[in-house]
Amino acid sequence: MTHGPILVINPNSSRRVTDGLAQALRPYALPGGPVFECLDIPESPATIASEDDVARCGLRLAELAQGRTDASAVVIACFSDPGLDLARDLLSIAVIGIQQAGILTAMARADRFGIIALSPASVARHMRRMRGMGVLDRLAGEEALPGVSAEDAGHSDAVYAQTLTAGQRLVAQGAGAIVLGCAGFAPRRAALEAALGVPVIDPVQAAAVIALGAVLA
Amino acid sequence: MTHGPILVINPNSSRRVTDGLAQALRPYALPGGPVFECLDIPESPATIASEDDVARCGLRLAELAQGRTDASAVVIACFSDPGLDLARDLLSIAVIGIQQAGILTAMARADRFGIIALSPASVARHMRRMRGMGVLDRLAGEEALPGVSAEDAGHSDAVYAQTLTAGQRLVAQGAGAIVLGCAGFAPRRAALEAALGVPVIDPVQAAAVIALGAVLA
Amino acid sequence: MTHGPILVINPNSSRRVTDGLAQALRPYALPGGPVFECLDIPESPATIASEDDVARCGLRLAELAQGRTDASAVVIACFSDPGLDLARDLLSIAVIGIQQAGILTAMARADRFGIIALSPASVARHMRRMRGMGVLDRLAGEEALPGVSAEDAGHSDAVYAQTLTAGQRLVAQGAGAIVLGCAGFAPRRAALEAALGVPVIDPVQAAAVIALGAVLA
Amino acid sequence: MTHGPILVINPNSSRRVTDGLAQALRPYALPGGPVFECLDIPESPATIASEDDVARCGLRLAELAQGRTDASAVVIACFSDPGLDLARDLLSIAVIGIQQAGILTAMARADRFGIIALSPASVARHMRRMRGMGVLDRLAGEEALPGVSAEDAGHSDAVYAQTLTAGQRLVAQGAGAIVLGCAGFAPRRAALEAALGVPVIDPVQAAAVIALGAVLA
Amino acid sequence: MTHGPILVINPNSSRRVTDGLAQALRPYALPGGPVFECLDIPESPATIASEDDVARCGLRLAELAQGRTDASAVVIACFSDPGLDLARDLLSIAVIGIQQAGILTAMARADRFGIIALSPASVARHMRRMRGMGVLDRLAGEEALPGVSAEDAGHSDAVYAQTLTAGQRLVAQGAGAIVLGCAGFAPRRAALEAALGVPVIDPVQAAAVIALGAVLA
Amino acid sequence: MTHGPILVINPNSSRRVTDGLAQALRPYALPGGPVFECLDIPESPATIASEDDVARCGLRLAELAQGRTDASAVVIACFSDPGLDLARDLLSIAVIGIQQAGILTAMARADRFGIIALSPASVARHMRRMRGMGVLDRLAGEEALPGVSAEDAGHSDAVYAQTLTAGQRLVAQGAGAIVLGCAGFAPRRAALEAALGVPVIDPVQAAAVIALGAVLA
Repeated sequence: MTHGPILVINPNSSRRVTDGLAQALRPYALPGGPVFECLDIPESPATIASEDDVARCGLRLAELAQGRTDASAVVIACFSDPGLDLARDLLSIAVIGIQQAGILTAMARADRFGIIALSPASVARHMRRMRGMGVLDRLAGEEALPGVSAEDAGHSDAVYAQTLTAGQRLVAQGAGAIVLGCAGFAPRRAALEAALGVPVIDPVQAAAVIALGAVLA
Repeated sequence: MTHGPILVINPNSSRRVTDGLAQALRPYALPGGPVFECLDIPESPATIASEDDVARCGLRLAELAQGRTDASAVVIACFSDPGLDLARDLLSIAVIGIQQAGILTAMARADRFGIIALSPASVARHMRRMRGMGVLDRLAGEEALPGVSAEDAGHSDAVYAQTLTAGQRLVAQGAGAIVLGCAGFAPRRAALEAALGVPVIDPVQAAAVIALGAVLA
Repeated sequence: MTHGPILVINPNSSRRVTDGLAQALRPYALPGGPVFECLDIPESPATIASEDDVARCGLRLAELAQGRTDASAVVIACFSDPGLDLARDLLSIAVIGIQQAGILTAMARADRFGIIALSPASVARHMRRMRGMGVLDRLAGEEALPGVSAEDAGHSDAVYAQTLTAGQRLVAQGAGAIVLGCAGFAPRRAALEAALGVPVIDPVQAAAVIALGAVLA
Repeated sequence: MTHGPILVINPNSSRRVTDGLAQALRPYALPGGPVFECLDIPESPATIASEDDVARCGLRLAELAQGRTDASAVVIACFSDPGLDLARDLLSIAVIGIQQAGILTAMARADRFGIIALSPASVARHMRRMRGMGVLDRLAGEEALPGVSAEDAGHSDAVYAQTLTAGQRLVAQGAGAIVLGCAGFAPRRAALEAALGVPVIDPVQAAAVIALGAVLA
Repeated sequence: MTHGPILVINPNSSRRVTDGLAQALRPYALPGGPVFECLDIPESPATIASEDDVARCGLRLAELAQGRTDASAVVIACFSDPGLDLARDLLSIAVIGIQQAGILTAMARADRFGIIALSPASVARHMRRMRGMGVLDRLAGEEALPGVSAEDAGHSDAVYAQTLTAGQRLVAQGAGAIVLGCAGFAPRRAALEAALGVPVIDPVQAAAVIALGAVLA
Repeated sequence: MTHGPILVINPNSSRRVTDGLAQALRPYALPGGPVFECLDIPESPATIASEDDVARCGLRLAELAQGRTDASAVVIACFSDPGLDLARDLLSIAVIGIQQAGILTAMARADRFGIIALSPASVARHMRRMRGMGVLDRLAGEEALPGVSAEDAGHSDAVYAQTLTAGQRLVAQGAGAIVLGCAGFAPRRAALEAALGVPVIDPVQAAAVIALGAVLA
């Protein structure tokens, strides 16, 4: 049996981000398995910064997904999981948000997890969502890297040094696994995991794998 | 790069159970991906019923895993996750328990989950472990099928009717996804999912996929 | 000092619902206090039934509120609080959701609360939101009235009898206050409170009063 | 219909504190609305410092309220909510405690709240009561101002500077609203709110407004 | 070294209840150990039924204890723990409440506990206190015996049959230990434990033993 | 009636530790009461450091206890409570773990507790177990003394100074009682309690007393 593609939808309009997603998912593209089709939304802004962006991009993402009746699953590739409840209500296929998947996968690997976020403002949003997920008792801590862009997160050596320090602080606070709170960190995941000695979870990979599991089950 | 096998260890001695695991994981055996090697432990009893069984089988499982330095990951294929903390302490590769993985995957698919267990006694054990996981606020309910054996769970039509009724009760209680609380249910997963209209999670598949994600990351 | 109006926005297009809001808020329209201006959104559907409705009506509500720079506060008059985070992000005035306000006011009146909802489907949504609010430990229970419309909730004697029975069940489960889970119940609030002997909270009134407190502070 | 007065009972004997309450509630005294009658208890000590004070003042407050059969609601105007359960058991009218009302109103305005308290000792008491309220997951933090008196809280510029610093620390910890943990802060509420950029809740106002809502419903 | 008596204070005026306490503590009166001195309060009512009783009896209990400077510890022998925070604030010796001690001892014996209460009204009070204790996740259930008096709880065979049925329901709900929610049940503790096959905790004994531990430490 | 001994089993092989247990329990050995028989396990390592040690020593402890049919109760005298669930499953007498007993006894003495641990690594383990116990909301904090041995914990004056400082930090964080997270601290318990002014709980004493209560009930 063949399966339709797993849509990995970047809800912003940055093609560079989308290329990063495709890069991160390359290891999971096995012969015979479903294709990960990475998409962005040209009408969206280049980054999702406000609640207004979250709301509008969520709607667009759901519309896009609804039009792709060939898809076997959908991954929402933005750490604020825009449109998650909406897309689940509209579609009968599996819809996976990368924030939820990243955190839950970390919880399958270790007792407590930490998160490395970009902006301090996002930490408050994450707290709200983790309370909604009912998983706050597993959180060891969250560290933000103020002023760092998604692109620098994966490509600047200076930022990598900051990221490593943040990870070490989280491990010292009891984190047995680290969730990368932005898709941009993906190119540094393996190095960070090696340096910290604990699992470091790329949430896009985590969501893609859970989607894969649903499609092939 | 090639990867060592993912060991899927049934900590009891029942070859029939092990064969069921292999069957459930067949869809995930993709060309180029790691092999799922399903094992059992001949010195163990045929079923794990008591805390003593849990403790002794956990030790044997960890010893077995420790000896397999070629492995890339370990799945503990028993819903009481015997030896999980122990194996994690001894090994540097990913160690995934099916109870945790099944529940966490259900949480990635829906807001609240239900569990279908075999014995009423196991329900109290699951409550203890879910409190330890900090996920009780996501539990919609748990239903037991007293007197049903692991084998009948997957092969008896009368038991399937009971299972379906239990699943319907859980959905009525608000479960948006169902976790099968015994590997024996696997042959009925797809039918149950179709009949209930919500995701039904085979915890062995859930754990295998998270292990796969870790190995290929 | 005079204050701009408190906008009480019904995010659907039903004028009849809007009239009901105005009716429920009449007791709070005191000379010298701010006006409660009750509005609906003509482009919205007559009822908000799906997550898609919630998302789209939330956006429209936020846009409407953003355009009313004369307003002193905003009340979101729909029990799913559509657009709450969005409107808060866009506006600097107080934005109050009736679900949150109704529940929090019940918590100011008694130790545990119950909710009377219309559809069984909404119960699952409320559970998710109450978990997000971190108040699940105060919930005594929630009862749904399947098949009852918002209009009948306030105007049918047969439905009132059902509502009373639901309230009595919640009191028996330990509810010291009842939250009406739909604005439509408002005409029956006082009768229900008298019959049950515990506070019965109309969430629109609860939100309006908290908005009033913010404006006059 | 006219309504009896809303009794706002300062359970200590300080007339100056009572005058401050009346001052804080002036904005809510609208023509046609119920009167806020602010009272103190001459037999009580000037401040409530010990558990013994809490117990004895609670009893006196409940007795006073019980004797006022003309009252339409009671506000307990002390941040330890003395006599709350007792007065609720004795009276059929609404009884609102300012600690509960202040915290719940903050929760209606923002996701997480902070508290500014006077003595460090009161922080431990507040933790106990917030655990009892089941709202600890919404707490961003609490800051104490050691050595500051209730009177200085509202009248000293040096103390205001300290208060502002405490508020800024709480906002940095994620507080989206601040609860003033002592009635004495009331004269500085508006200035603090303007300086911090988040809602600052005077708990006496919060309780008075909820009482008003109950009386006029 | 000799130790002052451990005061076991029945905060009501019923001598018969006090005699029951003395009877329940007989097994702990070992040569060389401290004496358990069981007292009641003649000015109190014969039973503690209302929040007013709780408040007034708590004050009297604390006064009584404060006057007994020879005491080495205090046990508050009423399941609503009247005066607990107050007495702890006033005294430097250990003050143990039987509700807290009974529940905590059950938690030292089994994973989840059940409570058998007398009046349904007390169940709501217990929920509030257990939330305050932060132990709700350990509660399997609570059963009330409406219309049963404290005296009948220990002396009527018909009531014993009801008590046994309640205990069986709690065990079926997952209770691994039962807390007797009234001192009056003490004479039936051993029979109930034998019949149910799980530990049955007399809270007066539980508190006395913890007091003993504190005194002899 | 005479009672069999209460077995206090040190699951490691250090006789010196066992002697310390016996010393700590001397005050509870009253004429007419059960004997506390302190044992160690010669086949065990001298200290329990890894999850492997925990698993193996737990099995040995349960075997030892199972062979002693004369025993009236069992105390597991290691702060990781090895073999607790196992021994409870195998034996019908009371089985008490010192970690659980120490924490629960602290909760019977004060609202929030702190823990003084030896190694920082144990703090993560304790967090996991306290989450499983459902008591995290009562934890004020935990302090580790890196590099301190169990023996020095009770015998070195330099370590005592560190312990006191840790205790003071915990009290400042709101701890109203301190649990000693290692049996080795026992000789300093009384001095620490006097210096800190809050109850300091030796978990071996706490468990022994609860066992005593169960045996004599």
